[in-house]
Amino acid sequence: MSKPIRVTVWGENFHENSDRDRAGMAERYPDGMHGAIAAGLTELLGEAVVVRTATQDQPEHGLTEEVLADTDVLTWWGHATHAGVEDAVVDRVHARVLGGMGLLALHSAHFSKIFIKLMGTTCSLAWRNSRDTELVWNVLPSHPISQGVPQPIVIDGQEMYGEYFDIPAPDELVFLSTFSGGEVFRSGCCWRRGKGKVFYFSPGDQEYPVYHHPDIKRVLANAVGWARPEQVDFSPPQVADSVPPRFTGATLVKEIV
Amino acid sequence: MSKPIRVTVWGENFHENSDRDRAGMAERYPDGMHGAIAAGLTELLGEAVVVRTATQDQPEHGLTEEVLADTDVLTWWGHATHAGVEDAVVDRVHARVLGGMGLLALHSAHFSKIFIKLMGTTCSLAWRNSRDTELVWNVLPSHPISQGVPQPIVIDGQEMYGEYFDIPAPDELVFLSTFSGGEVFRSGCCWRRGKGKVFYFSPGDQEYPVYHHPDIKRVLANAVGWARPEQVDFSPPQVADSVPPRFTGATLVKEIV
Amino acid sequence: MSKPIRVTVWGENFHENSDRDRAGMAERYPDGMHGAIAAGLTELLGEAVVVRTATQDQPEHGLTEEVLADTDVLTWWGHATHAGVEDAVVDRVHARVLGGMGLLALHSAHFSKIFIKLMGTTCSLAWRNSRDTELVWNVLPSHPISQGVPQPIVIDGQEMYGEYFDIPAPDELVFLSTFSGGEVFRSGCCWRRGKGKVFYFSPGDQEYPVYHHPDIKRVLANAVGWARPEQVDFSPPQVADSVPPRFTGATLVKEIV
Amino acid sequence: MSKPIRVTVWGENFHENSDRDRAGMAERYPDGMHGAIAAGLTELLGEAVVVRTATQDQPEHGLTEEVLADTDVLTWWGHATHAGVEDAVVDRVHARVLGGMGLLALHSAHFSKIFIKLMGTTCSLAWRNSRDTELVWNVLPSHPISQGVPQPIVIDGQEMYGEYFDIPAPDELVFLSTFSGGEVFRSGCCWRRGKGKVFYFSPGDQEYPVYHHPDIKRVLANAVGWARPEQVDFSPPQVADSVPPRFTGATLVKEIV
Repeated sequence: MSKPIRVTVWGENFHENSDRDRAGMAERYPDGMHGAIAAGLTELLGEAVVVRTATQDQPEHGLTEEVLADTDVLTWWGHATHAGVEDAVVDRVHARVLGGMGLLALHSAHFSKIFIKLMGTTCSLAWRNSRDTELVWNVLPSHPISQGVPQPIVIDGQEMYGEYFDIPAPDELVFLSTFSGGEVFRSGCCWRRGKGKVFYFSPGDQEYPVYHHPDIKRVLANAVGWARPEQVDFSPPQVADSVPPRFTGATLVKEIV
Repeated sequence: MSKPIRVTVWGENFHENSDRDRAGMAERYPDGMHGAIAAGLTELLGEAVVVRTATQDQPEHGLTEEVLADTDVLTWWGHATHAGVEDAVVDRVHARVLGGMGLLALHSAHFSKIFIKLMGTTCSLAWRNSRDTELVWNVLPSHPISQGVPQPIVIDGQEMYGEYFDIPAPDELVFLSTFSGGEVFRSGCCWRRGKGKVFYFSPGDQEYPVYHHPDIKRVLANAVGWARPEQVDFSPPQVADSVPPRFTGATLVKEIV
Repeated sequence: MSKPIRVTVWGENFHENSDRDRAGMAERYPDGMHGAIAAGLTELLGEAVVVRTATQDQPEHGLTEEVLADTDVLTWWGHATHAGVEDAVVDRVHARVLGGMGLLALHSAHFSKIFIKLMGTTCSLAWRNSRDTELVWNVLPSHPISQGVPQPIVIDGQEMYGEYFDIPAPDELVFLSTFSGGEVFRSGCCWRRGKGKVFYFSPGDQEYPVYHHPDIKRVLANAVGWARPEQVDFSPPQVADSVPPRFTGATLVKEIV
Repeated sequence: MSKPIRVTVWGENFHENSDRDRAGMAERYPDGMHGAIAAGLTELLGEAVVVRTATQDQPEHGLTEEVLADTDVLTWWGHATHAGVEDAVVDRVHARVLGGMGLLALHSAHFSKIFIKLMGTTCSLAWRNSRDTELVWNVLPSHPISQGVPQPIVIDGQEMYGEYFDIPAPDELVFLSTFSGGEVFRSGCCWRRGKGKVFYFSPGDQEYPVYHHPDIKRVLANAVGWARPEQVDFSPPQVADSVPPRFTGATLVKEIV
């Protein structure tokens, strides 16, 4: 329990470097969105975590076997270049999640290959970018992820993500967001897959400085704690062939059937 | 499958007769709220249902053993006089639900004795009566209850019910409501309890004519169909004492353990 | 509601034609496993269904656009040649399920491409083929799929499928199986995906005549009824771009935040 | 996180003192069942917990306001004298659970007043006392409660508890038990209620020394960790009356509706 959680903050790192967005991103996120997310986790969790970043433009998208073997929780932010993520890397991340690694899928990562592969649905939604106010409501007060934030969290400017959000029913529904345009979104959702845990959290867009918001940082820090592996063996579940029986000699009692 | 569903629409019938509310109620609900709900079901479901009403002011609140034994689905609307409902009647309804009868708990019935007894929680919530616009969003398009209504349902004037709503996580979350004040509410929730099914639906308040709204009538009709019993034996689950084993002779294989 | 449910019973049709299994299969399943499943549905559901079969050896595995467009519920049995199913057909079935078609994944179909794609996990399990007695226990008496069968269903000879079964937690857990060897399996599981419904049911193996078992036939007939689409528009959920707001003019009330 | 978890182990303490059972209990549980459970927690959790015991024969059943105010997790074992537990104490425990206290309901506590009140169902089941072998299978490897125990846990002699177990579908199903008689039971189940967490675990009967079993002790220790409160304010959820709106000025956009 006392070893630090090894967190890898993965960023697409596209908007940061695109002609259209570079200037604004440099203002909002001088160290990139991944840099801001990583800094927030380090600020709030201190020695309880060891945080590194990785980006899509690196070899193997920065997610080599070695990096994943050293990762307890992976956070994923992607938007414009989902299609450019190599399937082999997606499969590697998928196996690691099923083996126990936590995954935090953030905002537009709803359309990432890894999230769709884990969910099995289209993961489509409704959206509008018109600087809505977003209110994030806690609907699961017994959950570790919803601790230490006001009811509701208020985000002054955000892209709107709305229902219908095509996901499997969450194992735990933690947050619901409303928007000034009247929409609603299941914005904080937990699933267990294999030995691993997945948290989707929608607040956070490249055009708004949401990852500097103290309550959003708190939620992400809480989520890292929740998503950490329960064990140290990261092998995904596998078939157990021709297992020996536990009982022998069991005979059906016919008369009562 | 072809026998009509026997529906009993239960109403507190208090506001209809109180000095303060009588005039307004007579305008909005000349046949009482229970009368309006019953009429909507008959209108939409026709020969697929047989609908009666029962009210709190009747002997045994209109829910005698005979009436319940003739009821497949019970709808419940109460508000001002929850405490006046006799525990013996609550226990009777409870046993019938666990035996297979469907229950539709409507609006302020979140605080009815029967709903609290089935949920095990406080069933408390946030509220405000300021003629909000309510939008009811479908988040489970594969569910029979959400068929045939627009996305969202729009209710011009409604009391606001908001989170945190202290209920067990629904087995199926069908609707989420947003309000012009920015709040959110899990407004359409399904649970299974014993052999029976429970649907909570929040739209519907004595001060607004919501039960005449065509989409709300559709939801209630759908819910009656969903909540109908799967079988004809309405005995609640009970202990099976000293049951005979199904297998004999089973011996633990020690070496693999 | 009164139109017949259009069912396509899909079979791998490999064991029926393999040198090793042909003789035994001809005895147990003279019309193929798909033939037996189809006959059981027709026998129990009569005019409420229209049943056809399709097999992997047909062009496009018998699952052309036209066939799927005419299918409300698809049952899937595969085992030895999962890998030979074309991805394009899997994608087509996947889209149809998300659009509302019901899917019954049977026995070794836990390892079919379509089931894995819908689940997002490895779908691995433990197994042993030693003619165990299987007992199928109903743990959800309020569910339509568990109606009309004894507690438990007894299957004299069956392959053992055991935990850990690597699936997402079912939305509804209907059946648990025990085996004479002492194992347990979540043998009847429901999930909702997109607009569609998925039921996994494990009893049924090529080496045992399980699909002739009257209780197993009843479960499959019940499952077809449960899995039928709720609507006639089979388009999968999709992104709604730049949707207009429902409210205008909403301004955050600063002082209470 | 570093403060010890305050655990109160509650025991009915009836069998320990009854003429029929005293001798056998003294052999199996010289310090009472509550004493054995408390010792196991202290042994495995050390300084992470402060453990006390309380019994039904004490004033207010040992669960005074003061004791509960000093309790983070309560374990409950009762069997023969459920009816003798005062409703006022049950209500006090109920409020504390909804306020955040964890509750571990053990074995025959399925029929305790507090468990029934939290579940809303009959909590009935099938049983047989014939020294069955019980196998406890982990079906949720991502869960903290299932860590550090073999697959399956083997209990040589146990009372059989079988399905149908009349409980709400668990929020998280952790363990399934099979018995040498062929039965199955949902033996490890989690629910969230209000701000609190509830774990039911069936292994453990007065006639068998199950609470000395190292794997059972491990499960209980894990469960205490899982059930600990997330926060320090133990007030149950309550109604928020006439809350101010978060948005003002929101106007419905009519044309798109």
